[in-house]
Amino acid sequence: MATTRPTDLAEALEALRGQPPLVQCLTNTVVQQWTANVLLASGASPAMVDNQHEAGPFATVADAVLVNLGTPHDDTADAMKRAVLSATEHGRPWVLDPVAVGGLAWRTDIACDLLTDGPTVIRGNASEISALAGGAAGRGTDATIDPEGVLGQANELARASGAVIAISGPTDIVTDGDNEVRLAHGHVWLTKVTGAGCALGALVAAYAAVSTPVVAAAAATAHLTLAAESAAEIANGPGTFAAHLLDAMALMEPGDLAKRVVLR
Amino acid sequence: MATTRPTDLAEALEALRGQPPLVQCLTNTVVQQWTANVLLASGASPAMVDNQHEAGPFATVADAVLVNLGTPHDDTADAMKRAVLSATEHGRPWVLDPVAVGGLAWRTDIACDLLTDGPTVIRGNASEISALAGGAAGRGTDATIDPEGVLGQANELARASGAVIAISGPTDIVTDGDNEVRLAHGHVWLTKVTGAGCALGALVAAYAAVSTPVVAAAAATAHLTLAAESAAEIANGPGTFAAHLLDAMALMEPGDLAKRVVLR
Amino acid sequence: MATTRPTDLAEALEALRGQPPLVQCLTNTVVQQWTANVLLASGASPAMVDNQHEAGPFATVADAVLVNLGTPHDDTADAMKRAVLSATEHGRPWVLDPVAVGGLAWRTDIACDLLTDGPTVIRGNASEISALAGGAAGRGTDATIDPEGVLGQANELARASGAVIAISGPTDIVTDGDNEVRLAHGHVWLTKVTGAGCALGALVAAYAAVSTPVVAAAAATAHLTLAAESAAEIANGPGTFAAHLLDAMALMEPGDLAKRVVLR
Repeated sequence: MATTRPTDLAEALEALRGQPPLVQCLTNTVVQQWTANVLLASGASPAMVDNQHEAGPFATVADAVLVNLGTPHDDTADAMKRAVLSATEHGRPWVLDPVAVGGLAWRTDIACDLLTDGPTVIRGNASEISALAGGAAGRGTDATIDPEGVLGQANELARASGAVIAISGPTDIVTDGDNEVRLAHGHVWLTKVTGAGCALGALVAAYAAVSTPVVAAAAATAHLTLAAESAAEIANGPGTFAAHLLDAMALMEPGDLAKRVVLR
Repeated sequence: MATTRPTDLAEALEALRGQPPLVQCLTNTVVQQWTANVLLASGASPAMVDNQHEAGPFATVADAVLVNLGTPHDDTADAMKRAVLSATEHGRPWVLDPVAVGGLAWRTDIACDLLTDGPTVIRGNASEISALAGGAAGRGTDATIDPEGVLGQANELARASGAVIAISGPTDIVTDGDNEVRLAHGHVWLTKVTGAGCALGALVAAYAAVSTPVVAAAAATAHLTLAAESAAEIANGPGTFAAHLLDAMALMEPGDLAKRVVLR
Repeated sequence: MATTRPTDLAEALEALRGQPPLVQCLTNTVVQQWTANVLLASGASPAMVDNQHEAGPFATVADAVLVNLGTPHDDTADAMKRAVLSATEHGRPWVLDPVAVGGLAWRTDIACDLLTDGPTVIRGNASEISALAGGAAGRGTDATIDPEGVLGQANELARASGAVIAISGPTDIVTDGDNEVRLAHGHVWLTKVTGAGCALGALVAAYAAVSTPVVAAAAATAHLTLAAESAAEIANGPGTFAAHLLDAMALMEPGDLAKRVVLR
């Protein structure tokens, strides 16, 4: 792939603001509100259509789809499959967020099945990406291994699945299997607000509606982590940080993003 | 109907604070927390009893019921029907919020069925009201048409169903089919916080327990949109706005509301 | 039991921060996000694994389990039973929060059944504790009776079930059936933020992973209610209070907690 430049991310943000994508989110019930608010603040339009009757049809109307395995149940897992099949058939980009995969057998099977439907981007922490690639797994949602340590597995997963892989951690890595983009922005309070990673997955889906998968993953990561740096400067703890983070997501301008982001 | 005056809304707020109504909310999982917090801040008491076993019996104890179709599932849709039948039988006011109706066939059928059970108030954006009245429909929760443009359909719907219709938009319109009340308060950030409209539906239900349907819809709209104006003055973006909005809902006094609201 | 001292609570907080417990929360959908954020701010690690397939296996990995009956459904109620049986079998502490038990028959049966599985701590308001002990019941989540007024029932329940009982109210009481600890911290805004009590139940579970049940209940109560006092000093209403409360939970230090808490 061509080298990803800061201006590519700025153009993606400009495109997002110019034509707000409708993002269908089949996500966990813990973070639905937070995810919707992050998408709205960023400039996208969320719709949490996750029942079995409407998930498939709605994916033909949405501009992108997020499937997040945080709290799967029998009915929503079925709805996810329907949404994904519909998205694939109609050429809609979709993002797989394999929350806590590896440690839990049932959802690991669901994730492996969804993997065969060709996700556009897979976003997870190092443990989850490693588990999905067939390696070791953590027990919760906390990453217990470093993104750099699973890069080989991520590259294999990218080549095998055709998906771009976004590994979240102190340094975030985006890879298409051959080339990587690294971003080291953010703040530790992102780990003290539930659903920061889940919202990132949704934001990747939003950006995937207006740019290439690699740029989408990098732009979403930059948008969220740079906003986190701004928010942390004026917050006193994780509670006020979350409110300021939404403000900073909304205030982020393309030029500002291009100027501040460091891609390695 | 008699002309609605600012003092009518102030009296409704005074009644709400004097005898906090218990509002049973069968609402979407995205906005349950936000809805509960808006009701608590306003002075009402929320209870999200939405399972099939308890929804009916609880509606006989609650002072009002909200049914919101944001994320219906088979079991919660059945619970909604049970709650509504129970509310109607026991003379409890109930509010129908037909989220995204029209664009999605399954929930449109559910909404049309619930419509036959006599909602006290129907609250939605212009697209949703138009769709419920049998017209065109949008694809998500964003209104794509103007409240004024669907007023004819809303009036027909009001007369056919016996419900008061509250159409949300830049100018909010409340109609009983013959007369309208218009309010043009609020702030654009209300569209950047997920569930502002959903919470309004719940607040209409709360007010419907202490006043007439028209006054309830107008008072709830005034309470939320005037508080939004106060919150916007001290917020920096949608995140801090949401926190200040809850503060402003709590700080709103009847006299203040009557003094600030403009009814047309 | 030995007298509970402020330094016991400080040591519990130190232990929590030193070895963050993984708390499996099977809780109501209204407060999942808030509960996760309270746990994260406090220093614990939340995981909302509440489906029937994974709830049992995950309880063998988690350090503690919370079961909260706020919005039970057929599938999640079954998952609760599985988690509780697994937790008991593997010696994990678990907390029962019998939300709105008494007024609603279906969940009352569920609660009574779970009671036979030996909860470590039962946390509720006076109405809920009274109902679970076989007495009168309120209609919603608001306590309609005083903690002191149900102490006799709570002591009987503690002795019969083997659980420590934490009764929330203006004065919080923790009892093992023979001795009580009373705490009178907090702020009225805690009653204006949905899920304050529910989050307390989750925090009790977190502390139960690192201390005795009595100390766990008292430490969690002190942590939350002292933080509420700090937050109320700088908040303008329930919205900003909630954000500042999370900050204060995170900023709370063991020495500070020991110095400020009054145990009676």
